[in-house]
Amino acid sequence: MSAPVRSSGVTRVAVIGAGAIGRGWAALAAVHGWPVTILDSDAKATDSAMLEIANRVNALVRLGRADHTEAEAGLARLKAGRSLLQACGDANWIIECVTEDLALKQRLLENIEGVARPDAIISSSSSGLPMTEMGSHCRDQTRLVVTHPLNPPELIPLIEVVPGKFTSAATVETVCVTLRELGRIPIALNREVPGNVVGRIAAAVYRECADLVLTDVIDVDQIDRAVSLGPSLGWAAAGPHLTYHLGAGEGGLGVFMQHLMQTFETWWGSLAKWDRLDPDQVKQLTALVEKAYGNKLELIRGARDRRLATILKGLESSRRASGPQAPAPPA
Amino acid sequence: MSAPVRSSGVTRVAVIGAGAIGRGWAALAAVHGWPVTILDSDAKATDSAMLEIANRVNALVRLGRADHTEAEAGLARLKAGRSLLQACGDANWIIECVTEDLALKQRLLENIEGVARPDAIISSSSSGLPMTEMGSHCRDQTRLVVTHPLNPPELIPLIEVVPGKFTSAATVETVCVTLRELGRIPIALNREVPGNVVGRIAAAVYRECADLVLTDVIDVDQIDRAVSLGPSLGWAAAGPHLTYHLGAGEGGLGVFMQHLMQTFETWWGSLAKWDRLDPDQVKQLTALVEKAYGNKLELIRGARDRRLATILKGLESSRRASGPQAPAPPA
Repeated sequence: MSAPVRSSGVTRVAVIGAGAIGRGWAALAAVHGWPVTILDSDAKATDSAMLEIANRVNALVRLGRADHTEAEAGLARLKAGRSLLQACGDANWIIECVTEDLALKQRLLENIEGVARPDAIISSSSSGLPMTEMGSHCRDQTRLVVTHPLNPPELIPLIEVVPGKFTSAATVETVCVTLRELGRIPIALNREVPGNVVGRIAAAVYRECADLVLTDVIDVDQIDRAVSLGPSLGWAAAGPHLTYHLGAGEGGLGVFMQHLMQTFETWWGSLAKWDRLDPDQVKQLTALVEKAYGNKLELIRGARDRRLATILKGLESSRRASGPQAPAPPA
Repeated sequence: MSAPVRSSGVTRVAVIGAGAIGRGWAALAAVHGWPVTILDSDAKATDSAMLEIANRVNALVRLGRADHTEAEAGLARLKAGRSLLQACGDANWIIECVTEDLALKQRLLENIEGVARPDAIISSSSSGLPMTEMGSHCRDQTRLVVTHPLNPPELIPLIEVVPGKFTSAATVETVCVTLRELGRIPIALNREVPGNVVGRIAAAVYRECADLVLTDVIDVDQIDRAVSLGPSLGWAAAGPHLTYHLGAGEGGLGVFMQHLMQTFETWWGSLAKWDRLDPDQVKQLTALVEKAYGNKLELIRGARDRRLATILKGLESSRRASGPQAPAPPA
C-alpha cells in the first residue's frame, strides 16, 4: 500500500467485443478521460454500445462515481472501431471481451497479435478459461493476461488478474498498476484454475441456491434477500476467513476452527452435488426468476446501481477513516 | 410490505447462553429499550457478558445504529439471570443460544418449557439443527421456532426463521413481527434443512475458499479481499438470481440462463467435493489465518463493525429513495 505510486503509461484502450462487459470496460476507461475505441464483429452492436456507454458514463457521474469534466473528455475521445487494425493499432492496452468460447478467443487473440503494437498488453475478460489455452495461437504469450471484472465492471471494484504459464511478471505488474489507475482493485491469482476464484465461488453459491429453490425450501426472491442481507453484507465487511477469526471467542481461533469444521462436516455431505441441471430445470428456474422480478429491468438495474454506488462510497469513507478495507488490520 | 403494522406485544426477553450470539441478541433488544435478562450456566460468562453487552450497546450508539435515550433505558433494564426460573418466568420471548449440541439444546428447551409462561415464544439461535429434533422433549412444540442470526446479530439484519414440523403459523408470524420491531429482516424458510439456508451457502463458499488456499491458488488475505470486493458487493446490492436477471442482454433471460448453466457445468464438476478436512489441514488453515490477520482483533473488529454500519446506512438511504432493497422492483 505504501509502495511509491508509478504511472503505468497505459491510457489508450481498445475494447474488442461490445457486450455488457465490453461496454462496462469502455465506460470505466472513458470516465477517466482515457481514449477508448470499441469494436464488435456485429456493427449494430458497436453502434448501440456507443449509446449505452454514454448512458453508463453519465450514470457514473450522477452516482458520484466520476468527475464530470474527465467524463466529458473521455466521451469526446470515445470511438467506434471500424476494423481490428484501426481499433488496436495505436492502443497500449487491448481488452478482449467476446463470448466464452475457447476457439473464438484463440482466433481473435491471434488476430489481435497481428495488428497490436509490440509493447501493448493484451488482456482477456474471460470468467474462467485459462490464458495459456486462449493464447496458444499467439507467438508472444508473455504479454497476455486475464483481467476478469464482475458485472457491472464500472462499479464493482474487484478485477481478477490471472497469469497464464507464459505471462511475464512485468505484464502482471503493469496491468495491476493500470487497473488501480482506473480505481479498480486487482487481485492476482498464483495460477490458472477453471472459473478463476470468483466463478468457482459463484458456481458453488448458485448450485446451492438453485437446489434450495428446486427442492422448495425457499422462493427465488427470498433466497436472494437472504444472501443479500446476511452473508453478503458480512463478507463485504470482512471476508470468510476474517469473519471466522473475529468469531473466535476466548478459546481462540484454533478451538473455534475445530468446532466450525465439525459443524461444516455435518453439512458438507448434504450440500447439492449435481454437476448439471437438465433443460427443464433451467426452464423452471428461468420462469421463477421472471415471475419474481417481472420485466421492469431498467428500473431494477438503476436501483441496484444506486445501492452499489452507496455501498462503495461508504466503504471508501470508512477505509479512509480506518486503513485499508479487507484484510483489515488498521495500519 | 404494505400490510398494516401491528405490535407483537413481545418486549420482555430472556437470553439463555451468554456467548457471542447471546450477547448480540441482548445488545439488540437493549438498544430498543426492552428489558432483557441474560443467563449462562457459567456465572463468570454471565458477568463478563454484562460488561460486553454494555460495550456493544454503546458501540451501536456511536455507530449511529441506536438512539442514545432508548439504549440508556435498555441498559438500565438489563439483568444478569440467577436461575432459569428467574430469567424466563416473566419473559414473553425466550431465546436459546447455547453451543450447537443437540442433546444439550433438547434438555435446555425442556427445562425452559418447565418455567416459561404458557404464552411465551421460545426460539433457538441454532445455525442448522432442526427445530423438530431440538424440541422433541417439549410437550408444546407449536411455540418453538428457529431464529438464526449472523454475527454480529446487532448489526447484520437477516434472521433466518425456520419452523419445525409442529411450529404454528401464529408463532412464525409473531416472531417475524417482533424481529421487525427490532429492525431485523426475517426470512422464513418453508421447511427445515441442515444448515438452514445461510449455513449451507457459507459451507459451500468456505469449502471452495479453503480448497483454493490449500491448493495454493491464492492466499488467505487475497481470497478474503476477492470475496469482499467482488461477489459480496454484487450480491449485497442484488441477490444471485436477480444478478443474472440483470445480466441478461437482448436474447433475454432464457438464453442467458442456458449459456450461464453451460459455463457453470464446466466448473461444477471441478469444485471442491470433500466432506471433511483432516486435523492437519484445519491446523494449517488456522495458522494461515493467524498469520494473515495477526492478533489486533479488537481493532479489526471495530473496523469491520464500522464498515457494516456504513453499508447498512447506505442501503437504508437508498431503500428510502427507491423502494424495498432486494427484491428490487421499485414500488
